[in-house]
Amino acid sequence: MSESGVKLFQTWSSPLALRVVSALKLKGVKYETILEDLANKIPSLLQYNPIHKKVPVLVHGGNTMVESLVILEYIDEPWAVGYRLLPEDPYERSVTRFWAKFGDDRVFVSVWRAFFKEGKEQEEALLLALNNLRFVEEHIKRKRFFRGDEIGFIDLIFGCVANLLSILEEVAKVKILDPQTFPLLLAWIEVFSEVPVVKENWPPREKMIVKFKAIREYYLASN
Amino acid sequence: MSESGVKLFQTWSSPLALRVVSALKLKGVKYETILEDLANKIPSLLQYNPIHKKVPVLVHGGNTMVESLVILEYIDEPWAVGYRLLPEDPYERSVTRFWAKFGDDRVFVSVWRAFFKEGKEQEEALLLALNNLRFVEEHIKRKRFFRGDEIGFIDLIFGCVANLLSILEEVAKVKILDPQTFPLLLAWIEVFSEVPVVKENWPPREKMIVKFKAIREYYLASN
Repeated sequence: MSESGVKLFQTWSSPLALRVVSALKLKGVKYETILEDLANKIPSLLQYNPIHKKVPVLVHGGNTMVESLVILEYIDEPWAVGYRLLPEDPYERSVTRFWAKFGDDRVFVSVWRAFFKEGKEQEEALLLALNNLRFVEEHIKRKRFFRGDEIGFIDLIFGCVANLLSILEEVAKVKILDPQTFPLLLAWIEVFSEVPVVKENWPPREKMIVKFKAIREYYLASN
Repeated sequence: MSESGVKLFQTWSSPLALRVVSALKLKGVKYETILEDLANKIPSLLQYNPIHKKVPVLVHGGNTMVESLVILEYIDEPWAVGYRLLPEDPYERSVTRFWAKFGDDRVFVSVWRAFFKEGKEQEEALLLALNNLRFVEEHIKRKRFFRGDEIGFIDLIFGCVANLLSILEEVAKVKILDPQTFPLLLAWIEVFSEVPVVKENWPPREKMIVKFKAIREYYLASN
């Protein structure tokens, strides 16, 4: 397979699309960006992702892929040589997939819930989020990145935490990453945020705060 | 890596462990079974899977893996030659991973919800489940198995549907797989259920019905 015709559908703010942007840049894959406006979905997005109707969508040589985790695995398949996102060793690969899944299924869901609730419900969601994040804090140990000295698959998945968490904290007025409990996660966020393929694509913080304030108000009003 | 020391922690009824059992048998990997009693968790399960505390857990050469999807990917890595669960082509692999994820994140969650609810809430959950299952019906087309003539990764993932759905239908007194709407899924269930590595491990239907009646009553009473 060639690199010809790689297209990425994304929005200016999607943290899931950001995973794919950073992955493509790390791998050195050239691609074309198609910016979607999710409030006003263009027909091509619906055509490429009729089930979830969401970005990111990757098109390569006429084939379409959706779901950021699935896309990341694809990008790391041998058609795109260069930097490896997943480790070579089968066991280490399974550890990586476990943490990626734990991030998506547990950590982000619980953080998200804490963000969209108020009062007692928020307290409960927060407890669960903190509990999940404690497992991550233990796993990261004192390494620079999740797998050691180099950025990899899990870092890109947990990029959501690096990118969004302090924004959600500010908008919902909750403190999640307390420095006493999460010194290693906070250190990782600092290191991760400075990686060029991450930093150069981060959406502007002020614009994100406006966006997430509006989302939170909308959710709270409709519950 | 060698096949020495492959151990699988499972229960007599876990549909997620069944995925791994069938996969190991398809690959021809010899393994030792450790039967867990989840009502009375033995310390070794808690030690091997401290985060989720659930089966299946696979131990290979001293390494521990959890999450059936992660374990299936590992089993298909090159250490275990023989039958391939995932296709060789990177794009086909990504399609496979998409459907596996869609099964776990959408289909089974919505079917499960329909099973544990009553009245209006059940009707709503059922609508969602049917909608998700319709995408699967479309995807399967007229193939014997999800990828064609041979059993593979997606079949093992959707084994839950084959194995559990008619049991849940009977216990919750709902009809989900109507032959007019889901002729292809029903045909697939029939073919899948007759594959020896599946059939020889299925838990006895009557025992499953007793178990799921008890689970449902417990959930409904505690809500």
